[in-house]
Parts: sequence; C-alpha cells; structure tokens
Amino acid sequence: MLGGKLVERLVREGSLGGVSISALSLVDVVEVSRPEAPFAAGAIVADIADREVVADLVAHRPDVVFHLAAVVSGEAEADMATGYRVNLDGARSLFDTIAGIDGYCPRLVFSSSIAVFGPPFPDSIGDDHPTAPQTSYGTQKAIGELLLADYSRRGLLDGVAIRLPTICVRPGRPNRAASGFFSSIIREPLHGEVAVLPVPDDTRHWFASPRSAVEFLLHAAALDGDLLGGRRCLTMPGVSATVADEIEALRAVAGDEAVELIRREPDEAIARIVSGWPHRFEPHRALDLGFHAEQSFDEIVRIYLEDELGS
Amino acid sequence: MLGGKLVERLVREGSLGGVSISALSLVDVVEVSRPEAPFAAGAIVADIADREVVADLVAHRPDVVFHLAAVVSGEAEADMATGYRVNLDGARSLFDTIAGIDGYCPRLVFSSSIAVFGPPFPDSIGDDHPTAPQTSYGTQKAIGELLLADYSRRGLLDGVAIRLPTICVRPGRPNRAASGFFSSIIREPLHGEVAVLPVPDDTRHWFASPRSAVEFLLHAAALDGDLLGGRRCLTMPGVSATVADEIEALRAVAGDEAVELIRREPDEAIARIVSGWPHRFEPHRALDLGFHAEQSFDEIVRIYLEDELGS
Repeated sequence: MLGGKLVERLVREGSLGGVSISALSLVDVVEVSRPEAPFAAGAIVADIADREVVADLVAHRPDVVFHLAAVVSGEAEADMATGYRVNLDGARSLFDTIAGIDGYCPRLVFSSSIAVFGPPFPDSIGDDHPTAPQTSYGTQKAIGELLLADYSRRGLLDGVAIRLPTICVRPGRPNRAASGFFSSIIREPLHGEVAVLPVPDDTRHWFASPRSAVEFLLHAAALDGDLLGGRRCLTMPGVSATVADEIEALRAVAGDEAVELIRREPDEAIARIVSGWPHRFEPHRALDLGFHAEQSFDEIVRIYLEDELGS
Repeated sequence: MLGGKLVERLVREGSLGGVSISALSLVDVVEVSRPEAPFAAGAIVADIADREVVADLVAHRPDVVFHLAAVVSGEAEADMATGYRVNLDGARSLFDTIAGIDGYCPRLVFSSSIAVFGPPFPDSIGDDHPTAPQTSYGTQKAIGELLLADYSRRGLLDGVAIRLPTICVRPGRPNRAASGFFSSIIREPLHGEVAVLPVPDDTRHWFASPRSAVEFLLHAAALDGDLLGGRRCLTMPGVSATVADEIEALRAVAGDEAVELIRREPDEAIARIVSGWPHRFEPHRALDLGFHAEQSFDEIVRIYLEDELGS
C-alpha cells in the first residue's frame, strides 16, 4: 500500500529532494504493474531475501533505496520462519549487497515501526525510550535498525530508519491485522458498510495518514545525513487519538448515520494485544528534522476523503 | 578465558543450581583439553555458526547451554564478515537449532556486554537505558539479546542475557583489545614487568573480576525465569573505578615500586575509543535478582592475587 502510494508520488513529481529522477526499479513479491513514468521505470517480482536478486537490483547503483518490504506483524507472528527470512534476512541481504559495492553509499530509507517498543510505557514516549519489542515483527524491525546503524557508522550505506505510526485510514478492504479496526471504523461507514469495533472507546493509539507516511519516506530520502549525528533511527510524528476521537471525526464528516454503522463487539484477545501498544510519543528529533504529521484525527479523516474518495 | 574458568568451577563443584551435573560438552573454535571431571565430559573443536555442529551438540538436550562464543570487539571491528558470522549467525544458528527440537526449552545463558550501550551517557546508567551500540561487536550482542528475548517469549528457549562489565584483571598475556590496559597496568607490574597506560588517570569505567563473571553465569543458569517477567537482558553489577583507583589498589598490595612500572604513553586513538565507554551503572534488576560483584577495585586486585597468583 505504502510502496504504491510512494511510487505514484515519485512519478507525479518526477523528482526527489530537488533532483530529477532518471530511473526507478520496483521489486515486490507480488506482481506490480510497471508505472507509467516520465523516466525509466521497471517492476520485477522477486524475493528480497534472495541475494542474487538484490545484487541485480543495486548493480546500477541507485542513489536512493527505499526498503519497505516486510511480512506484516500478524503473519510474522504466525509464521516465524517466513518473518525472519523476509524481515531480517531480506534487510541484511540488501545491506550486505550494497556494502559489497566499492565506493557506493546510497541513502537507504528503512521503514521501521513503533512495534520496536514494548510496555511498560510512560504516558508519552521520548526519543530515548529503549526498544523492547513484544512481537517477532517488532524484533525484526529492531534488528534492522541496529544493522542499519552499524553499516551506516562504517560508511557502507547512508541509512535512515523511520518508525512509522499505525497508518490510518488505510484504503482497501479490511484485513486481519489486530490494528485493522482503527481504519475499518472510519472507512466502512464512509462506504455505507458496517464495521466491527472490538475494543473500548477510550483505547488510545498513535496514528498518521498514508499521505504523511509517504511524506516521511520522501523527507527521509532527502535528509542531510550529518544532522543525524550517528543516530539513524527516528520515531515519526503522529496523532495520539482514542477510538472516541475517531468516532467524533467520523460523525463530523458523515453524521450519526455513519457512526451507527459501528458495531461494538468486544474481543478480549484483540483488546489485550492493543492494550500493549503505545499511546503517544514525543518525537522531538524527527520534528526538529522537519518531519511532520497531522494535528488531529479530523485531519486524518479529511485526507482519506481527499486521497481515496476524491472529495 | 571465561569459558575455561566456568568449566573449572563446574568440574570442581560437580553441580549447577543444586543439581548434579551428569554430562558436559565443550565446543570451541580452538583446541581445548577435555576436562578431568567426575561426570561425562567432552570437548570438540568446531564452528558454532555451522548448523550441523550445533545440531549434534544439542541433540542430547542439555538442560543448560552457556553461549559465550564470540569474536571479540577489536576483531569484530577489523573483520566485519567474521564478526557477523560468528557473533550473529552463530547465536542464531544455536537458537534456531534449539527451537527446532520439539518440547525442548533449555536455560540458555548468553554472555552479552555493556558494549550494547553508547553515548551520550548519564552519570549513572539505569536498567532502562536504550541500547545504542557504537561498534559492530556491540551491535551483534544487541541483536543476540533481541533474538534471545523473542525466542524466549515464544517459549522456544528459556534465555537469560547478561551484560558483562569489562572483566579485570584478566590473566595471561597482554592482548590488543582497546581495553587491555585496564588489566595490564595491574597484571604486568605484579609480575615485575612494565605496563603502558595510554589514557589519563581520571578515566572511569565499569569492572568485575573473572571470578564474578563466572558467578554471574552460574547464577543466571539457575535463576527462576518467572522472576524475569519477560525482560531477559540484565546489566550485571560491577565496580565503577578510575585508572587512579586502579593504581592506588596496585600500590596498596605491591607498593610504589610496582606503580613505577606503569609508563604513561598517551594514545589519542585509544583515549577516544575509551571516552565513548560507560562509566557507571545502576543495575537494580540484577542486584534484586541476587547477582553481585566486587565492592572496590582493591577487591578486584585481591581476587587476581588469590585466583591467579595463589596468594
């Protein structure tokens, strides 16, 4: 989802950090269509954990590499071997391949996650909070961050890891991620469909829109590496909001009728998982470096309407 | 060094955590002699990153596994590939092999290091300080900790990672580790030999004796896992001391004559490395769990005299 939106944006702008894009290679494990672009663009289906594939990809030395490939949280938990192979070995194979090319040191933007953190949480989580992942996905992202920092320190690549908030409102159909309801309770009612809410209304979490997430990636790609001072992993800004805030944001744009499509079906398993997620961050470093996100959940809903429903 | 001392201790006591030892397998990349023990004991030369070797080793399901194997800090920095292969792939191959054996969940004691931490440091580092390694060695240890925590959370092994202080006074000959002088300036003068001191006298660092380090390993092996509450990585206690404290401890046992064998030869490269090392910890969790170390550098010197010089 994020990769697709990033490509749309790059194609539309034709430049990145003020520099014209001359070529773009996409790689995904599933078929993606070759973008219609004003520059050379290719798309291949391949497994990022395959070192030969990665060697081919970086052989022509792209200036910027976005590494978004990941087995998502739920799948990484259910299928441990695949999660480690893609999320850990995939990242390492990419980093090692780049490191193996003499005199090549591209900006590498790595999409990490707030899943690197685990409870107990303070009310607001600062930039120096220790990583203590509670899932295999979070563990794999935390390991990716460590590798990125070490390879960058050695001058083998020029990495920036950005810890993404929960991206909301996701377009498309509901998925089975434990976090899926955060998007569903906005998206489905806006389409006149019922959505299930499995947690209490006072459940608080940390969000950014897909549009902000793409902005984070673009900003990270163009960031002056000297400003990072050896600390390559940045917690991204976002909106701290409760489910009640979400519901009021929905009501503001679509009225009581939409809100009535939210069915409260408490699910203790999901509530337990979500209760272990962070509520709020104070991402001062990222803000100081010029990253910014929405100011309210109302804004997040408005962006969904603009970007997905064309209104 | 530590492995040898651990084996000596196990052989002498014949038990671990109150349970008689029935068998002991040693594995090292260099030849080690088979210990004379009151139980079955074997020693093999092998590479821990070789999955077949590991499979053979854990096939008879030892109750406790001590994973001390590591390429040391200086070597891991100089030879990146070897460091990652042994320190990361070696640990992962061990963890994966154990995880692959149905119904087997041994206590695994992993020797980590305070090298997982990096500056800026507070005056005293608490248990919740974030890991931010400044070396490949520290990165590899931090990754080992993350893997150990995730595999333990999944019930695939019962891990405890202990972050060792700088072990001092190391027996044997000087080595080329940047930290080597901390031991040399005590050890060499006690043997009537000259030692080089490359850093200022007010350089402060965090130490424990080899005897304490062995105690840490034994205590970690027998620790009630329920007390860890999902937090599997423990910073070990130690002594915060300056080079001046070391010198006074030497003077107390061996007089001015020994102290005069210390030659001050400032080395900016070493001073710069050492200036990025932590000075002091507040390892409350480990202390609460019953780990303990020396109270002063005098005590560390006394232990060297007792354990290495028989006095």
